[in-house]
Amino acid sequence: VADTIAVLCGGLGGSRLVHALALAAGPDRVSAIGNVGDDIELLGVHISPDLDTVLYTLAELLDESRGWGVSDESFAALRQVELLGGESWFTLGDRDLGLHLVRTERLRRGEPLSAVTADLARALGVGVRILPATDDRLRTYVETDAGELDFQTWFVRRRHADPVRGVRYEGAEACRPAQGVLEVLLEADTVLLAPSNPFVSIGPILAVPGIRESLEARGRVAAVSPLVGGEAIRGPLAGMMETLGHEPSALGVARLYADFADTFVLDVADAPLAGRIEELGLRPVVCETVMVAPGTRREIGRQVLEGVLG
Amino acid sequence: VADTIAVLCGGLGGSRLVHALALAAGPDRVSAIGNVGDDIELLGVHISPDLDTVLYTLAELLDESRGWGVSDESFAALRQVELLGGESWFTLGDRDLGLHLVRTERLRRGEPLSAVTADLARALGVGVRILPATDDRLRTYVETDAGELDFQTWFVRRRHADPVRGVRYEGAEACRPAQGVLEVLLEADTVLLAPSNPFVSIGPILAVPGIRESLEARGRVAAVSPLVGGEAIRGPLAGMMETLGHEPSALGVARLYADFADTFVLDVADAPLAGRIEELGLRPVVCETVMVAPGTRREIGRQVLEGVLG
Repeated sequence: VADTIAVLCGGLGGSRLVHALALAAGPDRVSAIGNVGDDIELLGVHISPDLDTVLYTLAELLDESRGWGVSDESFAALRQVELLGGESWFTLGDRDLGLHLVRTERLRRGEPLSAVTADLARALGVGVRILPATDDRLRTYVETDAGELDFQTWFVRRRHADPVRGVRYEGAEACRPAQGVLEVLLEADTVLLAPSNPFVSIGPILAVPGIRESLEARGRVAAVSPLVGGEAIRGPLAGMMETLGHEPSALGVARLYADFADTFVLDVADAPLAGRIEELGLRPVVCETVMVAPGTRREIGRQVLEGVLG
Repeated sequence: VADTIAVLCGGLGGSRLVHALALAAGPDRVSAIGNVGDDIELLGVHISPDLDTVLYTLAELLDESRGWGVSDESFAALRQVELLGGESWFTLGDRDLGLHLVRTERLRRGEPLSAVTADLARALGVGVRILPATDDRLRTYVETDAGELDFQTWFVRRRHADPVRGVRYEGAEACRPAQGVLEVLLEADTVLLAPSNPFVSIGPILAVPGIRESLEARGRVAAVSPLVGGEAIRGPLAGMMETLGHEPSALGVARLYADFADTFVLDVADAPLAGRIEELGLRPVVCETVMVAPGTRREIGRQVLEGVLG
């Protein structure tokens, strides 16, 4: 296939699809448009957890068992921070911190996140183009019974234990798509929504004015279900679907995307839902989607591409 | 002795005298007023090398063989910074970085360096009061044949290979002594100038308006020679004395302080210079001063105190 693919993605699940597609189609044919709604400034450093998970996964540096950060990591700086009374609830490894320091210094000099991300990808030997959805400030907040929480306070600090009553993308209306994003969405042969959380990973990307509109205006938009057998591979999506009033299944996710997607990829485990998905006006593609083991990714990337481009 | 002692000090040599005095007299009777002229912002973090050397020495965390940083240090963050093209010429260990992150975040919130330093000392179990000479911005620049260089560029990046033609304390005239500094200098029974570099360690402290004046106004000011047999224990002082037009010896240093000190401590190796020092109007105290080995410090602290308080 000589097609180009743009992927809207969050962290772990998204990065695995991007990795799978890069292995199947070649990295130069894949662009990833990443979520920045869960970016956070801590200890004076700017952390972009989702972009970094994509970077680390593609560079084959990710600690696959933890699902975040780099492998062979040490935590000496954080232990010292803790000893000295600094904020230490967000686990930052030493190698990871090195990347944050480089990024933060360049952002502070006024460089856009997209330019810094491109350079980090190059330095790590990553051939996929990785674009933040926006270079502007966009932050995801979650409404809970304990009040509104910023994403990382809810997700990491409180271990996503608070049921989610709503999600808000602060600053989204004033954001512009990062340089290159609309061009990629216009020119890619296919746009894929990764198997990422629709509310806190894909949602913040779609909230950037111009992105959702460009998907609505084009065809060949496919989504990959982040729920398999009603469960997320990792993370709190199933519970969020319920508390936000949606069916916690691939079908429930398909409904969220039905107004601008035309194809929906669901796992073989959910094959019985294909008919219901077709009734939504989406073409169902049933294939393997569980890409936890890196060794499975090339073949799953091939199956997804074949099904979607089919 | 129930006397209280204030020490003006730079990094390594100064920290060893402070440590020696703390061991001999008890940490609660010693205050250290530290140099901030070689502070530097790198990778977005505020580094106070001299204050940190004092902190680490007193906490018995210093890597005594390197003479900077903490022992059992790792450098994973810096290696990543280097890989990613960030500034890596200033060696920052992971544990050290943890401290810089905590300090930088608090400075950025508007807290004064003196308050942050006091809290870091408390967290590290250091009983000596450590005060930066000023909470304001003061930076040492060195005039060389290659032009004027900021201190760390000259000292670390170019390994103090450039002969020093002059020294300038940028911002000094607008600085105020940090909260507590003038009070300590007024109330201490004795003020000691540590065996630190007079130009780039003690000089920036004396350049803060009010500090030199308060030494001139009081008696019982003693200096400890940083040169032993015409050589510094470590660092470029001997060469600087020559290029700046001073005799590279304990006598040359004594001349620099003769207008406001009344006592001068010189090493037993320099005992023959005692008479010449007396001619400057300084009372010479001859004792052991080489405190490289931590095990020697209590006894040398005792000898210095006995000689100075004598």
